[in-house]
Amino acid sequence: MEILGKFLSAVKRYSLLKKKDKVILGISGGPDSVAMLHLFSHIKREFKLYLVCVHFNHGLRKEADEEEIFVKRLADSLNIKFVSERKNVGGFWEGNSLEQVARNLRYDFFFKVANTLKIKKIALAHTKDDVVETVLMRVIRGAGIQGLRGILPLIKLKRKTFIRPLIEMEKEEIIKWLKEKKIEYRVDSSNFEERFFRNKIRLNILPLLKKLNPNIKNNLFNLARLSAWNYDFVTKLAYKELEQVREEEGKDFLILNLERLKRLHPFLFLQVLRLAIEEIKGDTRRLDWRHFEKILEAISKKNIIIDLPRLIVEINASKLTLRALSI
Amino acid sequence: MEILGKFLSAVKRYSLLKKKDKVILGISGGPDSVAMLHLFSHIKREFKLYLVCVHFNHGLRKEADEEEIFVKRLADSLNIKFVSERKNVGGFWEGNSLEQVARNLRYDFFFKVANTLKIKKIALAHTKDDVVETVLMRVIRGAGIQGLRGILPLIKLKRKTFIRPLIEMEKEEIIKWLKEKKIEYRVDSSNFEERFFRNKIRLNILPLLKKLNPNIKNNLFNLARLSAWNYDFVTKLAYKELEQVREEEGKDFLILNLERLKRLHPFLFLQVLRLAIEEIKGDTRRLDWRHFEKILEAISKKNIIIDLPRLIVEINASKLTLRALSI
Repeated sequence: MEILGKFLSAVKRYSLLKKKDKVILGISGGPDSVAMLHLFSHIKREFKLYLVCVHFNHGLRKEADEEEIFVKRLADSLNIKFVSERKNVGGFWEGNSLEQVARNLRYDFFFKVANTLKIKKIALAHTKDDVVETVLMRVIRGAGIQGLRGILPLIKLKRKTFIRPLIEMEKEEIIKWLKEKKIEYRVDSSNFEERFFRNKIRLNILPLLKKLNPNIKNNLFNLARLSAWNYDFVTKLAYKELEQVREEEGKDFLILNLERLKRLHPFLFLQVLRLAIEEIKGDTRRLDWRHFEKILEAISKKNIIIDLPRLIVEINASKLTLRALSI
Repeated sequence: MEILGKFLSAVKRYSLLKKKDKVILGISGGPDSVAMLHLFSHIKREFKLYLVCVHFNHGLRKEADEEEIFVKRLADSLNIKFVSERKNVGGFWEGNSLEQVARNLRYDFFFKVANTLKIKKIALAHTKDDVVETVLMRVIRGAGIQGLRGILPLIKLKRKTFIRPLIEMEKEEIIKWLKEKKIEYRVDSSNFEERFFRNKIRLNILPLLKKLNPNIKNNLFNLARLSAWNYDFVTKLAYKELEQVREEEGKDFLILNLERLKRLHPFLFLQVLRLAIEEIKGDTRRLDWRHFEKILEAISKKNIIIDLPRLIVEINASKLTLRALSI
């Protein structure tokens, strides 16, 4: 059982599970998540797991209710607790992409169930294909190393741990396995519409790139993993350095030691700035490459004020002050 | 003169030129190199430059000889010394891609002229488009951060310095400028054939990606610059660390301190290994991600020998030994 081997190898490689874990499984009814439910059910006894199958009914397609019933029956048949929620996602759709709204509501639901049941781990059925598509989307939309990481096998978010044990499997092999085992699943028909950016990547761009290089998926997946390592390494160094250059701080400002900053490699300087801005603004949204470059160019000058989106950077004598603006 | 401004800003940003520099200009006769020749001629007096226009006649297309005459006349008209060489590149074509063979012979010629005339600097007319295409080619063919750097504005190679002062310009604006100034250039017709991988990227993939994101060129260019910084930073750290872990060495082996290696972040460990392997083998060709991963997985074990392409890795007690194999 090749698939189970890959599942266990990812579990081990990324330390995704330990014995007696309680895990919420996000199951849509599509092939990936149905396979994940079966795989978890298969190792349930050995790992002494407590599993909860959760399903979020987006109410977006006419098949949505049937899918919910399908997942409930599957969970019942495997003797796994089932929790679902139905929300008309279309009704929440304002401005943002529908996919984004759906995702936010789905995650809200996962957090709610996790908090109610006092479970810390949530398993999602993202595959290698999802990683590859994400990396390509990020390359096209514009990204640094942070974005090239794609989807991570394990992330902590609001005190929960999200794990992705299918991350080294290709969708194709999952579907092949499901067919061999005669396991039923549902197909989300919106995957075949060119409705979302991701689908354009999957249906138009990737097949074209595959003609240029049949190994494209592995290459993008390896780039993602390398980027994740690189990012982790650089970010840890930058955190250490931020503590060294930190001089004074308040609710919405941070004063850094400019002399010490100047001695850093420009790349590390940039990373320290990124973390410092995240600290006072919560994120680095609307700040792009050119803004960082402006700051870098200014550090050789004296007494300069740079006006950036929701951020003021002041350079005087030996200090660099970052001030967050609320408007 | 927007173009001249961009040229001078790149010269300054990347410290490409200093007063009284002697520079060899690689001129094919295409729009980019013709523009570069004009731009250098324009700043020649101010920078007190000694310029040599060199042209390599690949003898691949029927227009090749006419192009050589065209470039010679242009150089003469600008009062710039002209040197050319004609070689039937097709005759050297064995196995490798024709583009690669042509490139190697062209660079050989550049080095020869540079050595004969005792000139250290060679200017090439690569544009932002070339950087972007290269990044995309590398993403598709498989690359790490090293490859994502694309084409660098300044590199040292065999004691020569290659500079690329057009690196922040788009081909489109160069052609627009040439038309405005009524400056003649030649068009390499092979650019319009889908003969080379690069042309496929330029003619098929990039236009498609541009539909998904009109800003794609800037995004890929910024990714290249960020990757170059990242790579430079990480590599410098890894060199320092390699000196710390180096224990013993010979012509084809290198013994590293395993205890100290184990304490490094896995990403830095990988980079130190890469440099160590480059040192004893000359390159890391044929070693891919999985090989490095094998080594990483092995360091927790004792007494293990890993057989990699042209490389043996031995792990005993507190040592990691790298041995290069000649076959």
